[in-house]
Amino acid sequence: MIIDCHGHYTTAPKELEEYRKRQIAGLKDSTQIAVKGSLKISDDQIRESLENAQLKIQRERGTDLTIFSPRAGGMGHHIGNATTSQHWSETCNELIHRVCTLYPQNFVGVCQLPQSPGVAPKNCIPELERCVNEFGMIGCNLNPDPSGGYWTDPPLTDKWWYPLYEKLVELDVPAMVHVSASCNPNFHFTGAHYINADTTAFMQFITSDLFKDFPTLKFIIPHGGGAVPYHWGRYRGLAQDMGRPPLKELLLNNVFFDTCVYHLLGIELLLKVIPADNILFASEVVGAVRGIDPETGHYYDDTKRYIDAIGWLSAADREKIFHGNVRKVYSRFAASRGQK
Amino acid sequence: MIIDCHGHYTTAPKELEEYRKRQIAGLKDSTQIAVKGSLKISDDQIRESLENAQLKIQRERGTDLTIFSPRAGGMGHHIGNATTSQHWSETCNELIHRVCTLYPQNFVGVCQLPQSPGVAPKNCIPELERCVNEFGMIGCNLNPDPSGGYWTDPPLTDKWWYPLYEKLVELDVPAMVHVSASCNPNFHFTGAHYINADTTAFMQFITSDLFKDFPTLKFIIPHGGGAVPYHWGRYRGLAQDMGRPPLKELLLNNVFFDTCVYHLLGIELLLKVIPADNILFASEVVGAVRGIDPETGHYYDDTKRYIDAIGWLSAADREKIFHGNVRKVYSRFAASRGQK
Repeated sequence: MIIDCHGHYTTAPKELEEYRKRQIAGLKDSTQIAVKGSLKISDDQIRESLENAQLKIQRERGTDLTIFSPRAGGMGHHIGNATTSQHWSETCNELIHRVCTLYPQNFVGVCQLPQSPGVAPKNCIPELERCVNEFGMIGCNLNPDPSGGYWTDPPLTDKWWYPLYEKLVELDVPAMVHVSASCNPNFHFTGAHYINADTTAFMQFITSDLFKDFPTLKFIIPHGGGAVPYHWGRYRGLAQDMGRPPLKELLLNNVFFDTCVYHLLGIELLLKVIPADNILFASEVVGAVRGIDPETGHYYDDTKRYIDAIGWLSAADREKIFHGNVRKVYSRFAASRGQK
Repeated sequence: MIIDCHGHYTTAPKELEEYRKRQIAGLKDSTQIAVKGSLKISDDQIRESLENAQLKIQRERGTDLTIFSPRAGGMGHHIGNATTSQHWSETCNELIHRVCTLYPQNFVGVCQLPQSPGVAPKNCIPELERCVNEFGMIGCNLNPDPSGGYWTDPPLTDKWWYPLYEKLVELDVPAMVHVSASCNPNFHFTGAHYINADTTAFMQFITSDLFKDFPTLKFIIPHGGGAVPYHWGRYRGLAQDMGRPPLKELLLNNVFFDTCVYHLLGIELLLKVIPADNILFASEVVGAVRGIDPETGHYYDDTKRYIDAIGWLSAADREKIFHGNVRKVYSRFAASRGQK
């Protein structure tokens, strides 16, 4: 079985974007009380939005199932206020739930959180609980920078985040560290902001005792861990200079990397540097890079092909990466499949 | 000959730090007119600060010469105002000039620029000219984020920077893209802010026609190019999706990477992915990581050792990386050696 742990609903029917536009337009009139509004999308529209995109790609590439969440770039936590984020997150998560209900064999849900810059993360708990307990979702995406590129909230290791972590631990669901769009012109969103956030979060984890406080808390750092595997010597050395424990001991029970690295040499480095126990297969389709690599004749984001090409990877490690680790990191995965 | 293109004067006598502390203390009294003040450091103190550090390391590792600049983390462009940065940069650059005068065989200078958030970069031109024309320096360090982690100035591709670029082109000196300390608690400075800035700058270059406007402008992206080589497929794919030219054509006449990557597998990736014409040897000693890797028994930052270990690297490419490319990128290098 091959599970892609990182897919977003980037192909949602245009009505979703129109809903968001109405919501944003409504922000201009501060005398109006924000209402959630309604989204009218039929089951057929959902089917159509997936059949020629994610489902087609699953079939073509031989992926069995995708852990699926709302479009990351669309979360836009910097837009409006906490109520804006609440309504928008609920709407997006409900749509993901419909996808997973229509295609239970192909998708299992992960939710977006109603974060807002300067608003305590504990504010996200009710929506997290609803998605896990009522919709059967198995994780969430956690934005380490709700400001969208100005990084004005405290680091992920600050007690500011602890009430949310307590709930993650209680529910036994992991968080993927994933920023959203950048409103800072310095940061291209998928080319800089995403990768920087991955690197930043990892370095935050190195400097703190977060995982002493939460020994079972689990994070997935997407996009192959940002710059981390490439600079693994730097991170080992920095931890050592700071008198921290070796990285394996310090955080590899809690931090996992996906395989969204879009060339063979990058994937090879990831697999050589990071223990197989800490790598989860992912491609983030339909996502940041949509073209075909003229050097290979295949899609850049067909990450399964790179892993398949690595002859020295043992069968046991391949199994872990393709599905074994998902069952470990996403503790609710088996139950979501009706398994024990 | 082996040239290290990236060394900072991290071991300067403590008088320099005391000077800086006085300068910062002076900022509290806004009625005082800022004066540059004076720094008293003897030649012997300078010799002592280098003999057991950079010079010892050069001898031990077989590096002939280091392209040397003020401590990057110390630039602190976010502190005070433009006058603060002017005085501090002048002081630091004058000290580098003294180092290079005392040890002309071992060091050649690169200057810090008196940047300040929100202040037009053209403000740096007089100090750049002084350092190049009077001190014989061959490049500068350019901070893409003078705010120190809040990224409030325009991207490097914005016309905001153009007057400075015109001067760089006129003087024919390259800039190393190098941030300074982070005052944003989200970003560990050497573990996140440095690497993020490298990645960010590269992505900015992809999205712009900067090198059409300045075909001879040259940037060195340090720390092995941040996350870029590891995500080379992503960057090639993003450029392609945006209808930009292939990366080679778009920016590899203008953008170069150093080898400050502190493990063999990382260096191996860099050398496999990036053309040898675009790689400059560097170790950034004495720098971010100072320990010995228990897995190898050697210093993490002994990057020459990693390059030496790569058997498949051709002699011609090795020469380029160790010194040939420096002569091409730092056009004034030969003249600084009294060569044509």
